Amino acid sequence: MRDLSPGATIWFTGLPSSGKTTLAHGLAKRLSDAGYEHVEVLDGDVSREHLTKGLGFSREDRAENVRRIGWVASLLARNGVIVLASVISPYRDDRDAVREMHGGRFVEVHVATPVEVCASRDVKGLYAKQRAGELRGLTGVDDPYEPPLHPEVVVNTHEQSIDESVEQVWQALS
Amino acid sequence: MRDLSPGATIWFTGLPSSGKTTLAHGLAKRLSDAGYEHVEVLDGDVSREHLTKGLGFSREDRAENVRRIGWVASLLARNGVIVLASVISPYRDDRDAVREMHGGRFVEVHVATPVEVCASRDVKGLYAKQRAGELRGLTGVDDPYEPPLHPEVVVNTHEQSIDESVEQVWQALS
Repeated sequence: MRDLSPGATIWFTGLPSSGKTTLAHGLAKRLSDAGYEHVEVLDGDVSREHLTKGLGFSREDRAENVRRIGWVASLLARNGVIVLASVISPYRDDRDAVREMHGGRFVEVHVATPVEVCASRDVKGLYAKQRAGELRGLTGVDDPYEPPLHPEVVVNTHEQSIDESVEQVWQALS
Repeated sequence: MRDLSPGATIWFTGLPSSGKTTLAHGLAKRLSDAGYEHVEVLDGDVSREHLTKGLGFSREDRAENVRRIGWVASLLARNGVIVLASVISPYRDDRDAVREMHGGRFVEVHVATPVEVCASRDVKGLYAKQRAGELRGLTGVDDPYEPPLHPEVVVNTHEQSIDESVEQVWQALS
Protein backbone atom coordinates (compact mmCIF):
# COMPACT_ATOMS: atom_id res chain seq x y z
CA MET A 1 0.00 0.00 0.00
CA ARG A 2 1.31 3.40 -0.98
CA ASP A 3 1.89 5.59 2.04
CA LEU A 4 -0.95 8.08 1.79
CA SER A 5 -0.39 9.57 5.21
CA PRO A 6 1.36 12.70 3.89
CA GLY A 7 -2.03 13.48 2.34
CA ALA A 8 -3.49 13.17 -1.14
CA THR A 9 -6.63 13.83 -3.12
CA ILE A 10 -8.43 11.01 -4.92
CA TRP A 11 -10.61 12.79 -7.48
CA PHE A 12 -13.62 10.90 -8.84
CA THR A 13 -14.89 12.35 -12.12
CA GLY A 14 -17.74 11.08 -14.25
CA LEU A 15 -21.34 11.58 -15.36
CA PRO A 16 -24.28 12.07 -12.97
CA SER A 17 -25.27 8.69 -11.46
CA SER A 18 -21.99 7.12 -12.58
CA GLY A 19 -21.29 6.04 -8.99
CA LYS A 20 -18.67 8.59 -7.90
CA THR A 21 -20.05 9.29 -4.44
CA THR A 22 -20.79 5.63 -3.72
CA LEU A 23 -17.19 4.78 -4.58
CA ALA A 24 -15.83 7.68 -2.53
CA HIS A 25 -17.72 6.55 0.57
CA GLY A 26 -16.75 2.92 -0.04
CA LEU A 27 -13.10 3.87 -0.27
CA ALA A 28 -13.39 6.14 2.79
CA LYS A 29 -14.55 3.14 4.82
CA ARG A 30 -11.73 0.98 3.43
CA LEU A 31 -9.18 3.65 4.40
CA SER A 32 -10.63 4.10 7.88
CA ASP A 33 -10.61 0.33 8.39
CA ALA A 34 -6.95 0.34 7.33
CA GLY A 35 -6.20 2.82 10.11
CA TYR A 36 -6.07 6.15 8.28
CA GLU A 37 -7.33 8.77 10.70
CA HIS A 38 -7.81 11.78 8.50
CA VAL A 39 -10.14 10.98 5.63
CA GLU A 40 -12.71 13.42 4.19
CA VAL A 41 -15.29 12.93 1.47
CA LEU A 42 -15.95 16.14 -0.47
CA ASP A 43 -19.15 15.46 -2.33
CA GLY A 44 -20.28 17.80 -5.11
CA ASP A 45 -23.71 18.29 -3.54
CA VAL A 46 -22.41 18.94 -0.03
CA SER A 47 -19.95 21.38 -1.49
CA ARG A 48 -22.67 23.22 -3.37
CA GLU A 49 -24.34 23.78 0.00
CA HIS A 50 -21.31 24.91 1.98
CA LEU A 51 -18.84 26.14 -0.57
CA THR A 52 -20.37 27.12 -3.86
CA LYS A 53 -23.92 28.20 -3.15
CA GLY A 54 -25.11 30.60 -5.81
CA LEU A 55 -23.04 29.08 -8.59
CA GLY A 56 -25.00 27.66 -11.51
CA PHE A 57 -24.11 25.29 -14.29
CA SER A 58 -22.70 27.60 -16.96
CA ARG A 59 -19.22 26.82 -18.29
CA GLU A 60 -17.82 29.59 -16.09
CA ASP A 61 -19.69 28.56 -12.94
CA ARG A 62 -18.76 24.93 -13.39
CA ALA A 63 -15.11 25.96 -13.68
CA GLU A 64 -15.35 28.03 -10.49
CA ASN A 65 -17.11 25.18 -8.68
CA VAL A 66 -14.40 22.65 -9.58
CA ARG A 67 -11.55 25.06 -8.90
CA ARG A 68 -12.97 25.97 -5.50
CA ILE A 69 -13.51 22.39 -4.35
CA GLY A 70 -10.04 21.63 -5.71
CA TRP A 71 -8.51 24.43 -3.67
CA VAL A 72 -10.09 23.19 -0.44
CA ALA A 73 -9.01 19.63 -1.28
CA SER A 74 -5.43 20.81 -1.83
CA LEU A 75 -5.43 22.64 1.53
CA LEU A 76 -6.52 19.46 3.25
CA ALA A 77 -4.19 17.18 1.27
CA ARG A 78 -1.11 19.23 2.03
CA ASN A 79 -1.97 18.88 5.70
CA GLY A 80 -2.00 15.10 5.73
CA VAL A 81 -5.65 14.48 4.92
CA ILE A 82 -6.79 11.91 2.36
CA VAL A 83 -9.54 13.68 0.43
CA LEU A 84 -12.04 11.73 -1.63
CA ALA A 85 -13.63 14.28 -3.95
CA SER A 86 -16.70 13.30 -5.90
CA VAL A 87 -17.32 15.97 -8.53
CA ILE A 88 -18.70 15.65 -12.09
CA SER A 89 -15.97 18.09 -13.24
CA PRO A 90 -16.75 17.75 -16.93
CA TYR A 91 -13.88 19.82 -18.34
CA ARG A 92 -10.31 18.58 -18.72
CA ASP A 93 -8.78 22.04 -18.20
CA ASP A 94 -10.46 22.47 -14.84
CA ARG A 95 -9.42 19.04 -13.60
CA ASP A 96 -5.86 19.62 -14.81
CA ALA A 97 -5.81 22.94 -12.92
CA VAL A 98 -6.81 21.08 -9.76
CA ARG A 99 -4.13 18.46 -10.39
CA GLU A 100 -1.62 21.29 -10.78
CA MET A 101 -2.58 22.78 -7.37
CA HIS A 102 -1.75 19.46 -5.75
CA GLY A 103 1.87 19.12 -6.84
CA GLY A 104 1.81 15.34 -7.14
CA ARG A 105 -0.63 14.51 -4.34
CA PHE A 106 -3.39 13.74 -6.84
CA VAL A 107 -5.01 10.58 -8.18
CA GLU A 108 -7.63 10.98 -10.91
CA VAL A 109 -10.25 8.25 -11.06
CA HIS A 110 -12.48 8.21 -14.11
CA VAL A 111 -15.77 6.59 -13.19
CA ALA A 112 -16.48 5.60 -16.77
CA THR A 113 -20.01 4.29 -16.53
CA PRO A 114 -21.69 4.69 -19.96
CA VAL A 115 -24.40 7.31 -20.22
CA GLU A 116 -27.13 4.70 -20.91
CA VAL A 117 -26.33 2.95 -17.64
CA CYS A 118 -26.23 6.26 -15.74
CA ALA A 119 -29.58 7.23 -17.29
CA SER A 120 -31.19 3.96 -16.21
CA ARG A 121 -29.89 4.36 -12.63
CA ASP A 122 -30.87 8.05 -12.56
CA VAL A 123 -30.44 8.37 -8.79
CA LYS A 124 -31.58 12.00 -8.69
CA GLY A 125 -34.08 11.89 -11.52
CA LEU A 126 -32.00 14.27 -13.66
CA TYR A 127 -32.07 12.20 -16.83
CA ALA A 128 -35.86 11.89 -16.63
CA LYS A 129 -36.18 15.66 -16.16
CA GLN A 130 -33.95 16.28 -19.13
CA ARG A 131 -36.05 13.96 -21.30
CA ALA A 132 -39.20 15.71 -20.12
CA GLY A 133 -37.70 19.06 -21.14
CA GLU A 134 -37.62 20.32 -17.55
CA LEU A 135 -33.83 20.57 -17.39
CA ARG A 136 -31.16 21.62 -19.84
CA GLY A 137 -27.39 21.30 -19.77
CA LEU A 138 -27.15 17.79 -18.34
CA THR A 139 -23.55 16.59 -18.51
CA GLY A 140 -23.14 13.77 -21.01
CA VAL A 141 -26.51 14.38 -22.63
CA ASP A 142 -26.85 17.98 -23.81
CA ASP A 143 -23.75 19.37 -22.10
CA PRO A 144 -20.14 18.26 -22.71
CA TYR A 145 -18.14 15.73 -20.75
CA GLU A 146 -14.46 15.50 -21.62
CA PRO A 147 -13.06 12.17 -20.40
CA PRO A 148 -9.61 12.26 -18.82
CA LEU A 149 -6.80 11.38 -21.24
CA HIS A 150 -4.44 9.90 -18.66
CA PRO A 151 -6.34 9.15 -15.45
CA GLU A 152 -4.56 7.03 -12.87
CA VAL A 153 -7.59 4.72 -12.71
CA VAL A 154 -10.56 3.94 -14.96
CA VAL A 155 -13.46 2.21 -13.24
CA ASN A 156 -16.17 0.42 -15.21
CA THR A 157 -18.89 0.22 -12.57
CA HIS A 158 -21.33 -1.40 -14.99
CA GLU A 159 -19.15 -4.52 -15.32
CA GLN A 160 -18.43 -5.21 -11.67
CA SER A 161 -19.88 -4.85 -8.16
CA ILE A 162 -19.38 -1.79 -5.98
CA ASP A 163 -17.02 -3.76 -3.74
CA GLU A 164 -14.97 -4.78 -6.76
CA SER A 165 -14.77 -1.18 -7.94
CA VAL A 166 -13.68 0.03 -4.49
CA GLU A 167 -11.09 -2.73 -4.42
CA GLN A 168 -9.81 -1.69 -7.84
CA VAL A 169 -9.18 1.89 -6.71
CA TRP A 170 -7.67 0.66 -3.46
CA GLN A 171 -5.26 -1.59 -5.40
CA ALA A 172 -4.36 1.27 -7.74
CA LEU A 173 -3.17 3.27 -4.72
CA SER A 174 -0.60 0.57 -3.97
CA MET B 1 1.15 24.78 26.29
CA ARG B 2 -2.27 23.39 25.48
CA ASP B 3 -2.03 20.41 23.15
CA LEU B 4 -3.27 21.86 19.88
CA SER B 5 -2.29 18.86 17.79
CA PRO B 6 -5.82 17.46 17.55
CA GLY B 7 -6.55 20.63 15.56
CA ALA B 8 -8.21 23.94 16.37
CA THR B 9 -9.19 27.22 14.81
CA ILE B 10 -7.87 30.50 16.20
CA TRP B 11 -10.27 33.11 14.82
CA PHE B 12 -9.03 36.72 14.66
CA THR B 13 -11.89 39.21 14.40
CA GLY B 14 -11.65 42.99 14.28
CA LEU B 15 -11.83 46.12 12.15
CA PRO B 16 -9.91 46.59 8.89
CA SER B 17 -6.25 47.41 9.67
CA SER B 18 -6.64 46.24 13.26
CA GLY B 19 -3.72 43.84 12.79
CA LYS B 20 -5.51 40.48 12.40
CA THR B 21 -3.44 39.10 9.54
CA THR B 22 -0.15 40.32 11.01
CA LEU B 23 -0.99 38.53 14.25
CA ALA B 24 -2.10 35.38 12.41
CA HIS B 25 1.19 35.17 10.52
CA GLY B 26 3.18 35.96 13.66
CA LEU B 27 1.44 33.19 15.54
CA ALA B 28 1.86 30.78 12.58
CA LYS B 29 5.61 31.30 12.80
CA ARG B 30 5.57 30.82 16.57
CA LEU B 31 3.66 27.53 16.13
CA SER B 32 5.94 26.27 13.36
CA ASP B 33 8.97 27.11 15.49
CA ALA B 34 7.40 25.12 18.32
CA GLY B 35 7.19 22.10 16.02
CA TYR B 36 3.58 22.13 14.87
CA GLU B 37 3.58 20.72 11.35
CA HIS B 38 0.10 21.50 10.16
CA VAL B 39 -0.61 25.21 10.42
CA GLU B 40 -2.66 27.20 7.90
CA VAL B 41 -3.43 30.91 7.74
CA LEU B 42 -6.83 31.61 6.18
CA ASP B 43 -6.75 35.27 5.37
CA GLY B 44 -9.95 37.09 4.42
CA ASP B 45 -8.42 38.47 1.22
CA VAL B 46 -6.94 35.15 0.07
CA SER B 47 -10.26 33.52 0.81
CA ARG B 48 -12.14 36.09 -1.25
CA GLU B 49 -9.95 35.04 -4.19
CA HIS B 50 -10.24 31.27 -3.80
CA LEU B 51 -13.39 30.69 -1.85
CA THR B 52 -15.84 33.53 -1.96
CA LYS B 53 -15.27 35.32 -5.25
CA GLY B 54 -18.44 37.08 -6.33
CA LEU B 55 -19.65 37.78 -2.80
CA GLY B 56 -20.04 41.44 -1.90
CA PHE B 57 -20.34 43.25 1.39
CA SER B 58 -24.08 43.18 2.06
CA ARG B 59 -25.26 41.74 5.38
CA GLU B 60 -26.16 38.51 3.58
CA ASP B 61 -22.93 38.21 1.61
CA ARG B 62 -20.84 38.94 4.67
CA ALA B 63 -22.66 36.16 6.51
CA GLU B 64 -22.04 33.71 3.64
CA ASN B 65 -18.37 34.75 3.47
CA VAL B 66 -17.81 34.13 7.19
CA ARG B 67 -19.81 30.91 7.23
CA ARG B 68 -17.92 29.53 4.25
CA ILE B 69 -14.46 30.31 5.60
CA GLY B 70 -15.64 28.88 8.91
CA TRP B 71 -16.73 25.64 7.27
CA VAL B 72 -13.35 25.17 5.58
CA ALA B 73 -11.60 26.01 8.85
CA SER B 74 -13.67 23.41 10.68
CA LEU B 75 -12.84 20.74 8.05
CA LEU B 76 -9.16 21.46 8.56
CA ALA B 77 -9.37 21.70 12.35
CA ARG B 78 -11.13 18.37 12.73
CA ASN B 79 -8.28 16.82 10.75
CA GLY B 80 -5.54 18.00 13.07
CA VAL B 81 -4.70 21.33 11.47
CA ILE B 82 -4.23 24.53 13.46
CA VAL B 83 -6.06 27.17 11.44
CA LEU B 84 -5.37 30.85 11.96
CA ALA B 85 -8.31 32.64 10.39
CA SER B 86 -8.12 36.38 9.88
CA VAL B 87 -11.58 37.64 8.99
CA ILE B 88 -13.29 40.94 9.87
CA SER B 89 -16.48 38.93 10.62
CA PRO B 90 -18.43 41.89 11.98
CA TYR B 91 -21.55 40.06 13.19
CA ARG B 92 -21.79 38.10 16.42
CA ASP B 93 -24.32 35.62 15.04
CA ASP B 94 -22.04 34.59 12.18
CA ARG B 95 -19.03 34.14 14.44
CA ASP B 96 -21.11 32.15 16.90
CA ALA B 97 -22.30 29.91 14.05
CA VAL B 98 -18.67 29.25 13.14
CA ARG B 99 -17.85 28.50 16.79
CA GLU B 100 -20.76 26.07 16.81
CA MET B 101 -19.41 24.18 13.78
CA HIS B 102 -16.16 23.59 15.64
CA GLY B 103 -17.50 21.75 18.67
CA GLY B 104 -14.97 23.16 21.10
CA ARG B 105 -11.95 23.45 18.80
CA PHE B 106 -12.33 27.23 18.62
CA VAL B 107 -10.52 30.20 20.12
CA GLU B 108 -11.91 33.65 19.40
CA VAL B 109 -9.39 36.48 19.47
CA HIS B 110 -10.79 40.00 19.41
CA VAL B 111 -8.20 42.30 17.89
CA ALA B 112 -9.63 45.32 19.63
CA THR B 113 -7.65 48.14 18.04
CA PRO B 114 -9.74 51.34 18.24
CA VAL B 115 -11.11 52.67 14.99
CA GLU B 116 -9.01 55.87 15.15
CA VAL B 117 -5.82 53.81 15.29
CA CYS B 118 -7.00 51.54 12.46
CA ALA B 119 -7.88 54.60 10.38
CA SER B 120 -4.43 56.10 10.88
CA ARG B 121 -2.73 52.82 9.88
CA ASP B 122 -5.10 52.34 6.93
CA VAL B 123 -2.99 49.60 5.34
CA LYS B 124 -5.25 49.24 2.30
CA GLY B 125 -6.41 52.84 2.01
CA LEU B 126 -10.01 51.92 2.82
CA TYR B 127 -10.56 54.58 5.48
CA ALA B 128 -9.25 57.28 3.12
CA LYS B 129 -11.60 56.08 0.38
CA GLN B 130 -14.53 56.12 2.76
CA ARG B 131 -13.71 59.69 3.81
CA ALA B 132 -13.44 60.67 0.16
CA GLY B 133 -16.89 59.21 -0.49
CA GLU B 134 -15.51 56.53 -2.82
CA LEU B 135 -16.53 53.63 -0.59
CA ARG B 136 -19.54 52.89 1.58
CA GLY B 137 -20.18 50.23 4.17
CA LEU B 138 -16.79 50.26 5.87
CA THR B 139 -16.93 48.14 9.00
CA GLY B 140 -16.60 50.25 12.14
CA VAL B 141 -17.26 53.52 10.31
CA ASP B 142 -20.53 53.37 8.37
CA ASP B 143 -21.20 49.65 8.78
CA PRO B 144 -21.69 47.78 12.06
CA TYR B 145 -19.09 45.89 14.04
CA GLU B 146 -20.39 43.84 16.95
CA PRO B 147 -17.55 43.11 19.37
CA PRO B 148 -17.46 39.60 20.85
CA LEU B 149 -19.08 39.36 24.29
CA HIS B 150 -16.94 36.51 25.58
CA PRO B 151 -13.84 36.12 23.39
CA GLU B 152 -11.09 33.88 24.69
CA VAL B 153 -8.57 36.68 24.12
CA VAL B 154 -8.72 40.45 23.68
CA VAL B 155 -5.63 42.01 22.11
CA ASN B 156 -4.95 45.72 22.35
CA THR B 157 -2.43 46.12 19.54
CA HIS B 158 -2.21 49.88 20.06
CA GLU B 159 -0.73 49.46 23.53
CA GLN B 160 1.96 46.90 22.79
CA SER B 161 4.31 45.65 20.07
CA ILE B 162 3.39 43.00 17.52
CA ASP B 163 5.67 40.51 19.27
CA GLU B 164 3.97 41.21 22.58
CA SER B 165 0.54 40.69 21.00
CA VAL B 166 1.61 37.40 19.43
CA GLU B 167 3.03 36.36 22.78
CA GLN B 168 -0.25 37.22 24.48
CA VAL B 169 -2.27 34.96 22.17
CA TRP B 170 0.34 32.23 22.47
CA GLN B 171 0.12 32.40 26.26
CA ALA B 172 -3.68 32.31 26.13
CA LEU B 173 -3.46 28.98 24.33
CA SER B 174 -1.68 27.47 27.32
